[in-house]
Amino acid sequence: MAEPRRENSGPVGPPLLDLTIDNITPNTIRINSQSDDQRLTYLLSRLVTHLHDFARETRLSTDEWMAGLEFLIACGKICSEVRNEFILLSDTLGLSLLLDNINHPKPAGATEGSVLGPFHTHDAPLLENGASMTSDPAGEPMLAVCTVRDTAGNPIEGIKIDIWETDSSGHYDVQHSDRNEPSERCVMLSDEEGRFWFKGLKPVSYPIPHDGPVGKLLERLGRHPWRPAHIHFMFEKEGWDKLITALYLKGDPYETSDAVFGVKKSLVIELGKVDKETAEKYGVEEGTWLLKHDFVLTTQKDTEKLRDDLAKEALAKLGLHNLKLVDHLPVPDLD
Amino acid sequence: MAEPRRENSGPVGPPLLDLTIDNITPNTIRINSQSDDQRLTYLLSRLVTHLHDFARETRLSTDEWMAGLEFLIACGKICSEVRNEFILLSDTLGLSLLLDNINHPKPAGATEGSVLGPFHTHDAPLLENGASMTSDPAGEPMLAVCTVRDTAGNPIEGIKIDIWETDSSGHYDVQHSDRNEPSERCVMLSDEEGRFWFKGLKPVSYPIPHDGPVGKLLERLGRHPWRPAHIHFMFEKEGWDKLITALYLKGDPYETSDAVFGVKKSLVIELGKVDKETAEKYGVEEGTWLLKHDFVLTTQKDTEKLRDDLAKEALAKLGLHNLKLVDHLPVPDLD
Repeated sequence: MAEPRRENSGPVGPPLLDLTIDNITPNTIRINSQSDDQRLTYLLSRLVTHLHDFARETRLSTDEWMAGLEFLIACGKICSEVRNEFILLSDTLGLSLLLDNINHPKPAGATEGSVLGPFHTHDAPLLENGASMTSDPAGEPMLAVCTVRDTAGNPIEGIKIDIWETDSSGHYDVQHSDRNEPSERCVMLSDEEGRFWFKGLKPVSYPIPHDGPVGKLLERLGRHPWRPAHIHFMFEKEGWDKLITALYLKGDPYETSDAVFGVKKSLVIELGKVDKETAEKYGVEEGTWLLKHDFVLTTQKDTEKLRDDLAKEALAKLGLHNLKLVDHLPVPDLD
Repeated sequence: MAEPRRENSGPVGPPLLDLTIDNITPNTIRINSQSDDQRLTYLLSRLVTHLHDFARETRLSTDEWMAGLEFLIACGKICSEVRNEFILLSDTLGLSLLLDNINHPKPAGATEGSVLGPFHTHDAPLLENGASMTSDPAGEPMLAVCTVRDTAGNPIEGIKIDIWETDSSGHYDVQHSDRNEPSERCVMLSDEEGRFWFKGLKPVSYPIPHDGPVGKLLERLGRHPWRPAHIHFMFEKEGWDKLITALYLKGDPYETSDAVFGVKKSLVIELGKVDKETAEKYGVEEGTWLLKHDFVLTTQKDTEKLRDDLAKEALAKLGLHNLKLVDHLPVPDLD
């Protein structure tokens, strides 16, 4: 390991000596405030404050601290190309849902967001409208016929839509160790009338991966790891606010106790059945499960304005007044 | 993966639906409060509160969240039997020093604590008093002659003392990939007069491992990774409060800017030189560096009482009134 230069022996200011329960926090923030990156400085100052306050309020013991570090190491060790235990942790602690709400506020009438989860991949095939995205013969076939519109009802053409769901056993393709290629996932583009349609499976409820540290934590907390049956959608096109959402099946036993807090009433849907005419039109059997949904997107500009307004309002309510928004993110206002 | 039982479909209480920036926190705390372990419930409630407050106060962006998760994964991946990046993170964010202060408060006259750091091992050899704990011919030899006493000045016999320091290159043995056996570390026992003495090396300043994620973070923050020259000591014996501390050499360029905040004035010492008489007595050369120090320990009982008193005082000051101490740790007082 190359040794860093020794010239820089610390920040200007009082010596870092004899740090106590009471003065360690301002001193740590001070030494973390030497960078020109004001956003990083602000993030670290709030992180250190909350970390230290947590320790002071809980009088965290040395054994508990070590157990926490071991938990984080175990989370890191189990992560792989196809498993992200820290997303699971974030999801199960409610952080992911909170961040979606903060980053993608929706005006009335727009489709609400939900959690991304750890199972989106970047290798899903681009399929033509009408194609099948499943290779699982054991699942119950479902035809999905959807539209994407703006808040005024105009169709949006050429939106890239990522769609992913589990197979009939409740596992995403990446959870199978013998996965050769993507399955139960695809990318589509909306047509000139904002429509997209595909053949998939009726979603089933499933437990999030619970054989790792997050599963053990849920067990110790007396929580179940189940998610209600759902199918994920992600919409992206320049100029439009990226929408990460999911549709949930009404009546699922976990509809009101989702382990990752993702369900919103507006995203709970009832499946229908394909009638004779639709069956002929889309080339499926009559009586097949039918998902019909109209998604409504907002523009990036509208979302950024709404986000900024809500941020200013929230920061004022929190008593954080010496902040300004730069690139839509709060930083200390040093002027 | 075995599927968990499906009977438990969630906690009693309102449905977990339509969670927002404002109601996600109490709802997450509620679903985390189903266990009989009151301490765990309290820890999780404070953890979730601080995690969510951090997100709300910073309006954390999705990209920043993902960068944070990637940082945690990288920390986990670099951890091994001989490297603990999360201890480094805790040390450099001031958490470790804070926790030592909370867990091991000292009455006046007792030796103060310092950070454990990530380099203590459990394979150090038990050496007889007077033995050498170094195998590095390039270092400057140092004789250490110390005592351990209680706060009334009575010697403490049979204390187990872990001692560890770097070699002359500023690396602990475990940082060398060709490490075959422990070096620059040992365990000793104090004699009937509370004395212990050994041959080691004059400590040198060194950077903490900075080739991993924590080093990159320090660099982005404009912080140097250096620790002032020091030697670690850990004292353990039933009935006595475990003392984790270190002695620091006066005049080190990093004396007042320790990357891990460990230095306390009472732990800064000046080395002397061995005179003729001492040289003969301990079998070292005249003029060898001499470390003389008297350590003062407190009883476990006294420390627990002091810790409890300080905890009650701090919690009251923080406005956390509905708590009681069980096994010296705060839990909600439900009576």
